[in-house]
Amino acid sequence: MSEQQLSLDDVYRLAYECMKANGCNHENATALAETMTAAERDLCHAHGLFRLPGYAASLKSGKVKGDAKPTIKKIAPAVLQLDAHNGYAPLALKQAKQPLADCTKENGIAAMALIRVHHFAALWMEIEALANLGLAAFAFTAYKPAVAPPGGSKPFFGTNPMAFGWPRSGKPPMVFDQASAAMARGEVMIAARDGRTLPEGVGIDKNGQPTTDPDEVLKGAMLTFGGYKGASIALMIELLVGPLIGEHASFEAALNDNNDGGPPQGGELLIAIDPTKFGHPDDPYQHAERLFDELLSQPGTRLPAARRYANREKTEKQGVTVPQSLLEKIKSLR
Amino acid sequence: MSEQQLSLDDVYRLAYECMKANGCNHENATALAETMTAAERDLCHAHGLFRLPGYAASLKSGKVKGDAKPTIKKIAPAVLQLDAHNGYAPLALKQAKQPLADCTKENGIAAMALIRVHHFAALWMEIEALANLGLAAFAFTAYKPAVAPPGGSKPFFGTNPMAFGWPRSGKPPMVFDQASAAMARGEVMIAARDGRTLPEGVGIDKNGQPTTDPDEVLKGAMLTFGGYKGASIALMIELLVGPLIGEHASFEAALNDNNDGGPPQGGELLIAIDPTKFGHPDDPYQHAERLFDELLSQPGTRLPAARRYANREKTEKQGVTVPQSLLEKIKSLR
Repeated sequence: MSEQQLSLDDVYRLAYECMKANGCNHENATALAETMTAAERDLCHAHGLFRLPGYAASLKSGKVKGDAKPTIKKIAPAVLQLDAHNGYAPLALKQAKQPLADCTKENGIAAMALIRVHHFAALWMEIEALANLGLAAFAFTAYKPAVAPPGGSKPFFGTNPMAFGWPRSGKPPMVFDQASAAMARGEVMIAARDGRTLPEGVGIDKNGQPTTDPDEVLKGAMLTFGGYKGASIALMIELLVGPLIGEHASFEAALNDNNDGGPPQGGELLIAIDPTKFGHPDDPYQHAERLFDELLSQPGTRLPAARRYANREKTEKQGVTVPQSLLEKIKSLR
Repeated sequence: MSEQQLSLDDVYRLAYECMKANGCNHENATALAETMTAAERDLCHAHGLFRLPGYAASLKSGKVKGDAKPTIKKIAPAVLQLDAHNGYAPLALKQAKQPLADCTKENGIAAMALIRVHHFAALWMEIEALANLGLAAFAFTAYKPAVAPPGGSKPFFGTNPMAFGWPRSGKPPMVFDQASAAMARGEVMIAARDGRTLPEGVGIDKNGQPTTDPDEVLKGAMLTFGGYKGASIALMIELLVGPLIGEHASFEAALNDNNDGGPPQGGELLIAIDPTKFGHPDDPYQHAERLFDELLSQPGTRLPAARRYANREKTEKQGVTVPQSLLEKIKSLR
């Protein structure tokens, strides 16, 4: 597979210009390019340039507004609602961060419901941004049905990621961001593109039978991680980003989507926590460091995101490689 | 194995009198007996009368105060701290419910940090109580190290359950309560007592080797459900009930425990959400029912806790069976 070496600046420019050329205003193109560049930087290709064609398609179809201006209002003392007005999540999240942090520092805990938003990226980005303001935070989002419930045979849950982060002083935060699907859908798509088979237990074909063929899984359904326990988490996420905030659950997102290849309309829920407001008699951050030290004293262990941060250190110097076929596809979009 | 049939009233009386005889005041004995009876009623034996000897031991050793009076204070507009003053969780949680509900209805979202509390029961009980007040809620708690981190070989995480609930009108709430361990420690203990082997993947022996022998797992370590994803959740729970609220993480709880067989001192975190305060343009509860209906339209599926509620319906009429050996042990405690 032929590949090309790009600096992170090249990645950013490529993404920005493509989004601009396809109808985004400067603010949206900037936020999208930052998001895709951050994904490439951490070698999370499934949320990087790989998404550009989908973003472009959803601008072209008119499903997503490239000039959307998010608005934020306080709907309860500790609850903010961000209406993305059918724009993409990255600009919404960029503008959400500071108001949510302020509300959290005021109340100790606060939530932000993002509605009419089109999410197509990784959750660790918003969690990392909040952690860099000293906050622990959860993020949840859903998607279109891709994952079968236990006992069932048809997609019902989205891949439904949940992320959580904890701030660390002088170090990148502890962050995990994990699909309640056994594998992220983007990874299954990349396995299909690259002709690789999947591990056992990731999915079933359209007849409900186990398979390791990513194309068959994309036509059938994925399974949750950890069996029924992963499914409980998937169901919790449906409730939090659908019925709780008045947005589409996955099955509703599918009913309302035009299948242009871009992200459907959906919701996201952020819950942020100010660790200095929970009554710790000493320093909660230092206490957490003792916990991490104890964990890492066992040989062979690491913290979530350690690999991602190691990738980051490398790519910030060396840049990244991008498949030639993807670059050509991106060029054809302009 | 010889067993005896008891009504739920018998179970309650047995638990109440045993706790009273071992030094609990009326309020604590009542809350403990209610908790153990609810567990037996739902056929969650691992949190039922099975726990009585441990409760009694921790009263005898003086580790837990049978006459503790929990106190609650607001430490931020949306954060309450409950100090259990080294009492058991059930009385603390009984008194926590209404203040947390009030704070949640005021702010939309609120948290309660429970400190100096000794937790030895299931989390679904507090979640069900909050759901019955119309609230969605999360609960988290830790324990002493029992679960090895990925790549490691020694216990570090507690079994670290996480529970979540969503209220349903005219029906018992949707609730799940799941250990981040592949199996609840109480179940491993019961398998050991009954001489049963464990499924693959539940644990490792003291040399870090996989085993299905529950006695070996109790000497070695359990594993998390779903591999590293379950471990991320276990780590999140350590942070939420340790460093966040100024209580013991699992490894600290172990260092401070007298190993009398009762629950160590630890923390619990509750986060409650008022679904009517999150901006749903219509009715969030009805919206959730449409989600549940869609899920259950797939043959073979069920909601979390469905089995527990079915057990409840049966035992409320028929009572429960209790092993004779356990009854004799309980009698010897008085």
